[in-house]
Amino acid sequence: MLLRPIGRVESSLSERAEAPRQPDEGAPPAVLVFDGSVAAALAGLAVGAEIVLITWFDRASREVLTVHPRGDTDRPPTGVLATRSPDRPNPIGLHTVRITAVDGTRVAVDRLEALDGTPIVDVKPVLGGISTR
Amino acid sequence: MLLRPIGRVESSLSERAEAPRQPDEGAPPAVLVFDGSVAAALAGLAVGAEIVLITWFDRASREVLTVHPRGDTDRPPTGVLATRSPDRPNPIGLHTVRITAVDGTRVAVDRLEALDGTPIVDVKPVLGGISTR
Repeated sequence: MLLRPIGRVESSLSERAEAPRQPDEGAPPAVLVFDGSVAAALAGLAVGAEIVLITWFDRASREVLTVHPRGDTDRPPTGVLATRSPDRPNPIGLHTVRITAVDGTRVAVDRLEALDGTPIVDVKPVLGGISTR
Repeated sequence: MLLRPIGRVESSLSERAEAPRQPDEGAPPAVLVFDGSVAAALAGLAVGAEIVLITWFDRASREVLTVHPRGDTDRPPTGVLATRSPDRPNPIGLHTVRITAVDGTRVAVDRLEALDGTPIVDVKPVLGGISTR
């Protein structure tokens, strides 16, 4: 089960310490830069659409099984599968974002908490107009 | 970027032809059977919770870049990243499901369109109580 990057995130965020834990906590806009090899797969992604972006947290730890939610050691440890921690057995990131511009294989989105250079692995439409935000 | 299965889907669905395209189109209940190695990561998953299940469509084609939505050849071809087709460069499945029972590393869910044996790669809580359904 080998993932291949189909693009990369371009963002002003470069360090994990400066990334917000959730997108509504100050995440900046970003650009999704797709490989030319998947250009045809982008047909139909339009400005205004809300999409689920799937990334690979390449700077996360895969060995962590429990965390204190939001890093608060007063809270009991919780299994990582019951949290949104980037540290997890398969460090997949899910991000609901809105497309603000499309220029060839460059797709701008409104706000994203992923770091600059994060590999993109998939994009899916949000069905029914209901978001995970 | 190597995914490792952390469990498998147990389902009455065994053929792609019998799987519904969307979970609200007749998907049956299923059981998520996790590996013992990730048991600690499940702590906090509770009956009644809505979760996002992430799977690997191991019977999908990774070469397909465009599809006719819902297989309807009267509709123009659309990029797979603008659809929920299982055929895509990285065949990741996203499923919003509700937990109906937890028994050790066996987690029962209300309805799931994934086939029996499908590898599980991640689980995340739905934040804000808003679903992708």
